[in-house]
Amino acid sequence: MKLLKQNVIPLKNVKIDDGFWNRYQRLVKEEILPYQYLAINDQVPDVEPSHAIKNFKIAAGLEEGEYYGYVFQDTDVYKWIEAVAYTLVHNRDEELEKKADEIIDLIEKAQQKDGYLVTYFIIKEPDKRFTNLLDCHELYSLGHMIEGAVAYYEATGKDKFLKVACRFADLVDKVIGPEEGKLHGYCGHPEIELALVKLYRVTKNEKYLNLCKYMIDERGKEPHFFDIELEKRNHISHWGGRQDKVDKYYNQSHKPVREQDVAVGHAVRAGYLYTGMADLACETGDVTLLEAAKRLWDNVTTKQMYITGGIGSMAGGEAFSFDYHLPNDTVYAETCAAISLAFFAQRMLKMENDSKYADVLERTLYNGIISGMQLDGKHFFYVNPLEVWEKQNLHYATYHHRHVRTKRPGWFGCACCPPNLARLIASLGEYIYTQSEDTIYVNLYIGNNMKTNILGKDVEIKFSTNYPWGGESAIEVSKGDYKLALRIPEWCENYNILKNGKKADYKLQNGYAVLDGGFCDGDKIEISFDMPVTLVEANPQVREDAGKYAITRGPIVYCLESADNGENLWAIRVDENTKFTHYYDENFLGGCVVIKGEAVRVKEWTENKLYRKAKREEEPFTLTAIPYAFWSNREDTREMKVFITGR
Amino acid sequence: MKLLKQNVIPLKNVKIDDGFWNRYQRLVKEEILPYQYLAINDQVPDVEPSHAIKNFKIAAGLEEGEYYGYVFQDTDVYKWIEAVAYTLVHNRDEELEKKADEIIDLIEKAQQKDGYLVTYFIIKEPDKRFTNLLDCHELYSLGHMIEGAVAYYEATGKDKFLKVACRFADLVDKVIGPEEGKLHGYCGHPEIELALVKLYRVTKNEKYLNLCKYMIDERGKEPHFFDIELEKRNHISHWGGRQDKVDKYYNQSHKPVREQDVAVGHAVRAGYLYTGMADLACETGDVTLLEAAKRLWDNVTTKQMYITGGIGSMAGGEAFSFDYHLPNDTVYAETCAAISLAFFAQRMLKMENDSKYADVLERTLYNGIISGMQLDGKHFFYVNPLEVWEKQNLHYATYHHRHVRTKRPGWFGCACCPPNLARLIASLGEYIYTQSEDTIYVNLYIGNNMKTNILGKDVEIKFSTNYPWGGESAIEVSKGDYKLALRIPEWCENYNILKNGKKADYKLQNGYAVLDGGFCDGDKIEISFDMPVTLVEANPQVREDAGKYAITRGPIVYCLESADNGENLWAIRVDENTKFTHYYDENFLGGCVVIKGEAVRVKEWTENKLYRKAKREEEPFTLTAIPYAFWSNREDTREMKVFITGR
Repeated sequence: MKLLKQNVIPLKNVKIDDGFWNRYQRLVKEEILPYQYLAINDQVPDVEPSHAIKNFKIAAGLEEGEYYGYVFQDTDVYKWIEAVAYTLVHNRDEELEKKADEIIDLIEKAQQKDGYLVTYFIIKEPDKRFTNLLDCHELYSLGHMIEGAVAYYEATGKDKFLKVACRFADLVDKVIGPEEGKLHGYCGHPEIELALVKLYRVTKNEKYLNLCKYMIDERGKEPHFFDIELEKRNHISHWGGRQDKVDKYYNQSHKPVREQDVAVGHAVRAGYLYTGMADLACETGDVTLLEAAKRLWDNVTTKQMYITGGIGSMAGGEAFSFDYHLPNDTVYAETCAAISLAFFAQRMLKMENDSKYADVLERTLYNGIISGMQLDGKHFFYVNPLEVWEKQNLHYATYHHRHVRTKRPGWFGCACCPPNLARLIASLGEYIYTQSEDTIYVNLYIGNNMKTNILGKDVEIKFSTNYPWGGESAIEVSKGDYKLALRIPEWCENYNILKNGKKADYKLQNGYAVLDGGFCDGDKIEISFDMPVTLVEANPQVREDAGKYAITRGPIVYCLESADNGENLWAIRVDENTKFTHYYDENFLGGCVVIKGEAVRVKEWTENKLYRKAKREEEPFTLTAIPYAFWSNREDTREMKVFITGR
Repeated sequence: MKLLKQNVIPLKNVKIDDGFWNRYQRLVKEEILPYQYLAINDQVPDVEPSHAIKNFKIAAGLEEGEYYGYVFQDTDVYKWIEAVAYTLVHNRDEELEKKADEIIDLIEKAQQKDGYLVTYFIIKEPDKRFTNLLDCHELYSLGHMIEGAVAYYEATGKDKFLKVACRFADLVDKVIGPEEGKLHGYCGHPEIELALVKLYRVTKNEKYLNLCKYMIDERGKEPHFFDIELEKRNHISHWGGRQDKVDKYYNQSHKPVREQDVAVGHAVRAGYLYTGMADLACETGDVTLLEAAKRLWDNVTTKQMYITGGIGSMAGGEAFSFDYHLPNDTVYAETCAAISLAFFAQRMLKMENDSKYADVLERTLYNGIISGMQLDGKHFFYVNPLEVWEKQNLHYATYHHRHVRTKRPGWFGCACCPPNLARLIASLGEYIYTQSEDTIYVNLYIGNNMKTNILGKDVEIKFSTNYPWGGESAIEVSKGDYKLALRIPEWCENYNILKNGKKADYKLQNGYAVLDGGFCDGDKIEISFDMPVTLVEANPQVREDAGKYAITRGPIVYCLESADNGENLWAIRVDENTKFTHYYDENFLGGCVVIKGEAVRVKEWTENKLYRKAKREEEPFTLTAIPYAFWSNREDTREMKVFITGR
């Protein structure tokens, strides 16, 4: 197996200017970041306080008080800084930067002499540091600290936070490792792995890469670290009470990572772990690790992924369940899990020029990720169902739907998803391109201006598109012999590529149309994808979707909502002969393409009964489908449905 | 509203001799009763002891020891006696009767001087009698005692047990009632109501009818008895710990019974309560109560009943959920709840000559009730799912399917369903006929010999049938001017009635073909129902069944099992054009009609992916459907499905 080692073109070189994403990036800057700043500072009225900044102040000895919040509460602050950093790259903002600097000063003050910095343990259980890697998220916290510190350093050039992160990482390196007396351990919640690779890249210090490698190699080995740790803790769990054993599937330590081929357990943990594995493989050239990552990728995306790009089908453990088990109503599909899949995809693109990774990236980005956020940028879903019957969700006896909400709440006690969305959207520029020695790969169709150096020359690309509502993109390139590889989306059956208005020459390679060099300044490449409304069926092994169809157009998965179609969406039926039309409505849901379909509806019965001899009484019905990601943006959320009854 | 007051023709006058039911009645006598006798005597190896008889011995002072079992453990003994009694009616068996007599002697010895008899309180909490009617089942226990005692008296003429029951009922009458100083209460688990009507009928003592009426009238009134009781108990629950409030929906005391129109809460409780309401209405002529019973009947059977006649869709609370919410996989549909629906139907038939009651009785009897029992008579389901994917049920993360088993276990700790099945099957003769002043109504098509007195004359009927596998019945009648009303099943579109080989004259009334008197001895009525294989659709409001079909033939609901059709039953599709054939196979599952269908199967994909543009690739597939009630009688129970994907 060949392993490429390509770069993503970094954020500072890619400035997004896009009809679809500008709004989201503006929401991050104007809504999410200010709101989150207030939240971590306990300044949001009528909301349970976060206490995150307060914990740092107490740990720094600047205030008195008790610790409050989750054991990983610090990470809310780190993720805020990370999102701020990405935002600052193209939008320097002195006031925002000043706020971040002040918080970083505070963080530094809270750091202990030996480098330790998790406020929970500093304040509450100083003698319990590193005694419960299984549940206490210390390394997870360090991971987010590193990600924030690296991003802030890259955005501003300021290294104070980076040094804080290095000091804590150095301490962890002294505590964890193969040597006798060290813990032969790793974190119950993967995250540190991918962060250490980032730290290595920016510091060039191999110690961090080796620490990452140690944690990944050690995971799942026997004798099992979490068993040993549990024994040492006398089987006392973090929450008090006796813990008999460790659920190793839950945290993906059920076997060594290179032996894993089926995604199991908590989906966010899994996504972060696989991303870290891919990062490490890319840096070290370790093909065995790449192979494991590829197997896990294939399992996730060909056996356990919703059509929206959501992953983790079960509320129990917020977890993967098993192949082809994708319930639409009791689903979990956490926003953060979809985000972790985007991370994973981006890392795989660096090692393999295969459009399948970008196809999944696009799928989850336009559907299962942004469905996590209301169009106002102020309300967020953890759980992203593909089917909702509000009556069922609200009924007292139907307890297995209770985790599924029909309306996005304002913020959460465990506020992982909103800041995760913020940092992904703010760094979206890094997901558009990958670059090999001689080729620029366009993975996502998002309007942007990009600069890079390829084959020794500075190159600039101006990319404009009406994606995802239309399939037309225009790319103005600058002079050079580099190749330009344009991803042909999996969903696209017909497309057309022009160079300066004439049919372009290209070769198809692994899902990309590769245009072969020789560009002049101002050359204009146009690519247009036919974007018809398309009915999609699920693999027949997905029992939940048997006999049903999803409506899609381009990368967008559509849904029916009761707000447009009235009650009982289940009675609406479509098939391959259903005629669909679509139009862009700039005044609807912030502007989107709406789909109409000449479907049928099963007639309401006149009989007051439950069962009768089948007689297929249908009547014409014009259905209205809206982008799935935009559901629950109106008052009426009684019903929503992605997979529609077939006929 | 007119209220009839008809009789069922009692068990002693109806001797079943039927190709289908003889086997079940034999299983009751030869398997269930002997097994249950061993069980209550703790003589089954490798099974948790029942301790039921032992509790009586301890309460009687004959043995030392601690109480063990549920608070209602006594009822296992009562239900055994009741089933024994029904069995003895047509099968006197000295040995069996001797065992019952010995147990009755023991029960009498355990009775306290004041008549009290619940062994839990006698042994364990003598000072807590009648302090927790909400949860402690004391009146429920008395109810089953009465049912057993009445049945045993009617079967054998022996009144010792009946006297025991009267003494306990007399005590309860002293404790509960409208007078000051008495409890203005009723039982958290209805059952006593229907039992007191039985006791009234056999003793003619109106006290028992009045007590029943008091309990039914009082239920759900404010100030609420269970609130007052909880207050008196200082909010201490039976299981220790504080109980804040009472779930009044759970036990149908959320409002006065005459104001109830939607079935809620624990389905068995509901079924027993509605049966008791109907019993009381029938005895007292209380039309307001009949109206409430009719509303609840309509709600249950037209909004909340599975096609199998199962009721109670939710595991949480073993309860009704809401109209048209009938999930096939997370279903509860407890065997006992279906049995309670049969009770309810039988009582309604006494007040209204409407075939709809018998239609539901037949539906639940041939499907959702007997599905509770394996063909060996030794294994039993509590929960009767309409769809099973074993992988999902067994997977650790899919906790909301855990209550659904794919194989019937041997017996239960809480052994309500097997003895309930036993007493229903043993008393099935009482469900066949109702009789008005001048008409004999045939409600069920079960072979039997019946004697009754009508219009002052003794009459005899010999009824033979090949039901449910065929639709042909022959009825030999004896001389008289009575009318004979033959139910035309709801499922039947074409039928033919002959009298002595010639087309008979009849009038259709409320779903019955009424033959108008003037019978001579030996007259032969033949009725034959066309019994084609029929695809059934559910009301479109039942979202779970949208786009799906059930296969039925006559009263029998069919299912697909993986044992016959291989894995992934979801990929099998039928529609109104599917050709079905059927045949009787005497060597298959104890003899039954098997259905074959020229259906299609969605082709397995060659692509290793989850979603693709819909292209409906199907291949011919001959499906095999078996009677739903007979599912899980073979090794392979990986999948089962009643509602099949449509096309």
